[in-house]
Amino acid sequence: MEFMITQGLFSKALSDVNRAVSSRTLLPILSGIKIVAEADRITLIGSNSDIIIERTISVTDEKVKIHKTGSVVVSAKYLADLVKKLPEQIHIKADNNQIHIQAGPISTRLNGFSADEYPSLPLIDGESIHIPAEELKDAVKTTVFATAKNETRPVLTGVNLTFAENSFTSVATDSQRLAFKKSDIRSSGEGNFVVPNSSIDELAKLVNHYSGMVEIQSAEGYIHFKTDEISLYSRLIAGHYPNTTALIPAEEKTTLVLCRETFIKGIDRACLFAGEWKNNNVTLSIYGDKLCISSGSSEMGNIQEYQEIKYIAGEQELRISVDGHFLLEALKTINDAEIKIKFFGPMKPIVIESSEGKSSYLHLISPVRSF
Amino acid sequence: MEFMITQGLFSKALSDVNRAVSSRTLLPILSGIKIVAEADRITLIGSNSDIIIERTISVTDEKVKIHKTGSVVVSAKYLADLVKKLPEQIHIKADNNQIHIQAGPISTRLNGFSADEYPSLPLIDGESIHIPAEELKDAVKTTVFATAKNETRPVLTGVNLTFAENSFTSVATDSQRLAFKKSDIRSSGEGNFVVPNSSIDELAKLVNHYSGMVEIQSAEGYIHFKTDEISLYSRLIAGHYPNTTALIPAEEKTTLVLCRETFIKGIDRACLFAGEWKNNNVTLSIYGDKLCISSGSSEMGNIQEYQEIKYIAGEQELRISVDGHFLLEALKTINDAEIKIKFFGPMKPIVIESSEGKSSYLHLISPVRSF
Repeated sequence: MEFMITQGLFSKALSDVNRAVSSRTLLPILSGIKIVAEADRITLIGSNSDIIIERTISVTDEKVKIHKTGSVVVSAKYLADLVKKLPEQIHIKADNNQIHIQAGPISTRLNGFSADEYPSLPLIDGESIHIPAEELKDAVKTTVFATAKNETRPVLTGVNLTFAENSFTSVATDSQRLAFKKSDIRSSGEGNFVVPNSSIDELAKLVNHYSGMVEIQSAEGYIHFKTDEISLYSRLIAGHYPNTTALIPAEEKTTLVLCRETFIKGIDRACLFAGEWKNNNVTLSIYGDKLCISSGSSEMGNIQEYQEIKYIAGEQELRISVDGHFLLEALKTINDAEIKIKFFGPMKPIVIESSEGKSSYLHLISPVRSF
Repeated sequence: MEFMITQGLFSKALSDVNRAVSSRTLLPILSGIKIVAEADRITLIGSNSDIIIERTISVTDEKVKIHKTGSVVVSAKYLADLVKKLPEQIHIKADNNQIHIQAGPISTRLNGFSADEYPSLPLIDGESIHIPAEELKDAVKTTVFATAKNETRPVLTGVNLTFAENSFTSVATDSQRLAFKKSDIRSSGEGNFVVPNSSIDELAKLVNHYSGMVEIQSAEGYIHFKTDEISLYSRLIAGHYPNTTALIPAEEKTTLVLCRETFIKGIDRACLFAGEWKNNNVTLSIYGDKLCISSGSSEMGNIQEYQEIKYIAGEQELRISVDGHFLLEALKTINDAEIKIKFFGPMKPIVIESSEGKSSYLHLISPVRSF
């Protein structure tokens, strides 16, 4: 294997792939990046037990020149750190599981592994689903925070993505709260996947600066997300994801419309005083025509503040305690200037929706005991 | 105690003082900030065992209005976090060791301590030394990195500041390397202090955006640095600081002048390969008319690069190994485009100085065994 490449291009590609590589791995070869040079492209692969990232560099301009095809595996950390610090033109040559790098007056040799020992990629099967990157990013970012952080029910540590004809839903719940997002899309293909929350960050980065279509396919216990230059394989969580629509209560007793930004600031202040409680208890109640947000702890002190209610329907009597951090996390994913909160009774969950027409998102938060 | 203050001013002052406060303290009252309201000023004090920060807010404009003098101690963390999140106008009132804060529609109460129980400030004694903030900042920033990180010889964990008539020197050494900086200043007063490296960061922040004169005084085992609005008291390290001028070898065998930036980049790359060695061994040698920088490890591989020598005097035979990280730390404190390195023999320390005339700084680094 032998090729020339510009430092900027190679360094960026290595850092894209390096995100999948963990230095703590049981299989030493997985601490490396696999480099494959073919006549028309260079492919870099990095992986850990949960995700695999594949990055392609096409030989289309003067930035890359292949002299000899071949492949090698080199320590991801050492190679990425070194290339970051090299000058503009890099000459790579591999033989006997070693890689020689020449850049101007600098010569280095890095020890590597045989590329034959690197695990092969999962085989892609099933039909392709196509979805705009923007929709995918929005859906996972607005739901992933609600996944379970402990492993008691493994399936709840993932985000449930469902592709149906013309719609795409993303759902996460840790059984105390639920985040739901639905998009109307022109999708081809159907599928239902539970993707680990640890993979969602990488997926969000993958589509962050990409505005095209993402191709989605299943592949031997993995889900495969493909953009123009980068592919991400994420392990799927096995098991049946619960039917969450049954959890949403019916017949609200009180509906409020509030200014989202003012409400966030009030809940944020109240949370300062809620740290002593296991559930960050923040109490919402109605006094006259105002919403009162309050919290307190014996150690620190207490806070009360009164906020304007934009619109109210139903019962005027209201007093409920919820986890202030759960409320903040849900509110921060919303872009609307105003939000609608529905209350169903002091021991029933509250529901947050868009205040305008049919809501594409829904957040449900269970109440907490305040005594 | 009762006063009105704008949120921005109060929040900035609290965060200045909060830097001295540690949440892990044996004396619970030291987790608080002492607030003293007098007719013409508000004073905030925060402290831990090593440093005390005192911040004064003068009642000169519309931003502060004292209604009633008095004092209280309030949890530093809670108060600073809360004030950050409040709107513009803040009304503070203290009674019975509680502080009441009203800001628009927001009312809060924070538990506090009696101000009488707060330790009193060290009494200032001795004459005043005056030094430009710029000189003080430069001196401590270019030497503090060389202080000892372990406590075997406590006096070496500090920076030695010496004020004499018309000169000021700053020295630090961990006995394997030495950093020295001398300034010609019009100083009034003399003094010799060993300041803990943990206080130097705070001192650097104190004078970072300040361009006036700093007043320095000793105070019962403390050193007191005073600017217009903020005072810093730092504990002094007791003990006799060694005479470091005796460590600097005489009669160099080889002198090189190098481009500092190119040399830093070369050492930085070589350090990547030096991690396996206890002392980050990087080898410098002369090949023909070039300087060769090399390093290697059995695990990772090796690197060699050749750099231009701007000027050479003395013996052309040279091969010495030094700790690459020590070299980098010293080189990064220097602003000059070119530097002079003096070599005294393979087992003698190397010395880095300015390449132009009389040097105001000197860095000494001991060699390491490379076998």
